[in-house]
Amino acid sequence: MLSTILYGPRDIRVEHRDTPKILEPTDAIIRIAVSCVCGSDLWPYRGIQPTKEPTPMGHEYCGVVEDVGSAVKTLKPGQFVIGSFFASDNTCPHCHNGYQTSCQNREFVGGAQAPLLRVPLADGTLVPTPNMPTEDLLPSLLSLSDVMGTGWFAADAANVKHGSTVAVVGDGAVGLLGILSAKIKGAERIIAMSRHVSRQKIARAFGATDIVEERGEAGIERIKEATRGVGADSVLECVGTQESMMQAVRSVRPGGYVGYVGVPHGVELQGEQLFFAHVHLHGGPAPVRRYLPDLIKLVFERQIDPGKVFDREVPLDRVAEAYRAMDERRAIKVLLRP
Amino acid sequence: MLSTILYGPRDIRVEHRDTPKILEPTDAIIRIAVSCVCGSDLWPYRGIQPTKEPTPMGHEYCGVVEDVGSAVKTLKPGQFVIGSFFASDNTCPHCHNGYQTSCQNREFVGGAQAPLLRVPLADGTLVPTPNMPTEDLLPSLLSLSDVMGTGWFAADAANVKHGSTVAVVGDGAVGLLGILSAKIKGAERIIAMSRHVSRQKIARAFGATDIVEERGEAGIERIKEATRGVGADSVLECVGTQESMMQAVRSVRPGGYVGYVGVPHGVELQGEQLFFAHVHLHGGPAPVRRYLPDLIKLVFERQIDPGKVFDREVPLDRVAEAYRAMDERRAIKVLLRP
Repeated sequence: MLSTILYGPRDIRVEHRDTPKILEPTDAIIRIAVSCVCGSDLWPYRGIQPTKEPTPMGHEYCGVVEDVGSAVKTLKPGQFVIGSFFASDNTCPHCHNGYQTSCQNREFVGGAQAPLLRVPLADGTLVPTPNMPTEDLLPSLLSLSDVMGTGWFAADAANVKHGSTVAVVGDGAVGLLGILSAKIKGAERIIAMSRHVSRQKIARAFGATDIVEERGEAGIERIKEATRGVGADSVLECVGTQESMMQAVRSVRPGGYVGYVGVPHGVELQGEQLFFAHVHLHGGPAPVRRYLPDLIKLVFERQIDPGKVFDREVPLDRVAEAYRAMDERRAIKVLLRP
Repeated sequence: MLSTILYGPRDIRVEHRDTPKILEPTDAIIRIAVSCVCGSDLWPYRGIQPTKEPTPMGHEYCGVVEDVGSAVKTLKPGQFVIGSFFASDNTCPHCHNGYQTSCQNREFVGGAQAPLLRVPLADGTLVPTPNMPTEDLLPSLLSLSDVMGTGWFAADAANVKHGSTVAVVGDGAVGLLGILSAKIKGAERIIAMSRHVSRQKIARAFGATDIVEERGEAGIERIKEATRGVGADSVLECVGTQESMMQAVRSVRPGGYVGYVGVPHGVELQGEQLFFAHVHLHGGPAPVRRYLPDLIKLVFERQIDPGKVFDREVPLDRVAEAYRAMDERRAIKVLLRP
């Protein structure tokens, strides 16, 4: 089958690889319906994170179960399922506490930018949809595999509640879906920090009430102005740089919450600054598995349409175009058809 | 009157100073019943925090209202009151959100190691007791002014709930009262990290179920062992050093909570470490004012006896002994009689 392999900085190739097989009795093989490129794929693509050996790419997926191992109890071939980037047993104490991405037996799922994928710990990891989804639901279901679940976690970690004033740092797919999540959770005011007209448009469609184009000091000033000098109740940090984290910490009100889901790259926090800011800080790899059942329901009931973040689509053999478009920020998120 | 003045590292003196007067119409003057030396007084005493000019010391106090300014509405001379180290108006948005130590009009209260004290924003800051307390309640009421309120905030920030497994880093007065707070909040298991037999004894009296004497890697290992490899649900960080903060972050389970109340001195946190630890982090100067009404009730009902942390008492003119005893860790906390 064709598979997407990263060799090094900006060297992404589509190559023939062996079809994945059941290796453990708890595995499942799924036939990918749609996959995509993640903002976090750009860290190794850009060389910011080193690529030690040719690496199969892709960790966002949904599709139909093709085969299951002998120990798999809850799934059978033919079911449409969604999983996330960490396989989890969903039975260990960390999973029980809702932190499946810290599962004691977690395994990273890689190689989803391909027609077939092996998913370990299938019973714990994969959630079936109520029935076979229609074609139009696929982008939204795919988004639940990572970006929508991550935006939701950001809003959850930032304690967004009915009536909250929320600021969102980052206008990538996760930031935009953080806006949608805040809206669904009942936020009254949602301030999107974005400089890109096309992204501002989606932000507004998802529920943003204010757009702040400024960054740094000026951006913080604008948020303070917009909240009568108080600061936001909740800030969603969806980038992962020192600048974006400081933007978040300094925009929140005393006693407010920063939910951070951008994988931190070189971020350093001063204890004293956090202390006197009175900020709540929570984040990490989003425990998407926790949210999948509820989010699948919202998509099937057509209450949310997170698939809107896909603004481009390419066939798998042209995956390099997808990476380029996202790297150059010409696309928010590119959907791949295997 | 006699007043305690810090001149520089280990240079603490008792000097005659003018009696404080009403300066603003919102001020009150209170006659101190009892005062004490705080662990945080040791930072400037030890020279870790510079003393730029001779500084009146003491920010923990309770006593009887002597005089009030013309704008003070809720207090009158003769009432017994407790306040905390930051005066707050208790009406601004931050106060409404329960973060009175971030009050938009806050003022630090200093000079309580003396017979009389001027307290700004008296209506917002001072909470009267239901009636004139008996002598035996004074140490416990005094503790509410800072250390008990701070221990309580640590437990609150660390989300201690009925059935929680809690670890407490630091066996000073705040750490010990964090144990008491966790107990009152219904923690099932409370692991005290302490190497001092006399402090372990108070820790046990306050509700600690386990004592861990090890620190660093070994200490983390012990907490992991005690929790079947999971980690604590809540960790109270009551010291403020890099070592103690790391002890806390690394002892908590994924999705668990660190409440930190030790004023951080040179603490640096790596974003990536916090991210993959899945930790909730919250802390800051304890909003003692928020808790005063409830804690006063608990003391008057004799449900708690936080005054046990005072293991020594000296008259004000021998305050230097109090600082020495605490500096050399011969005393946990010294009560001063003005």
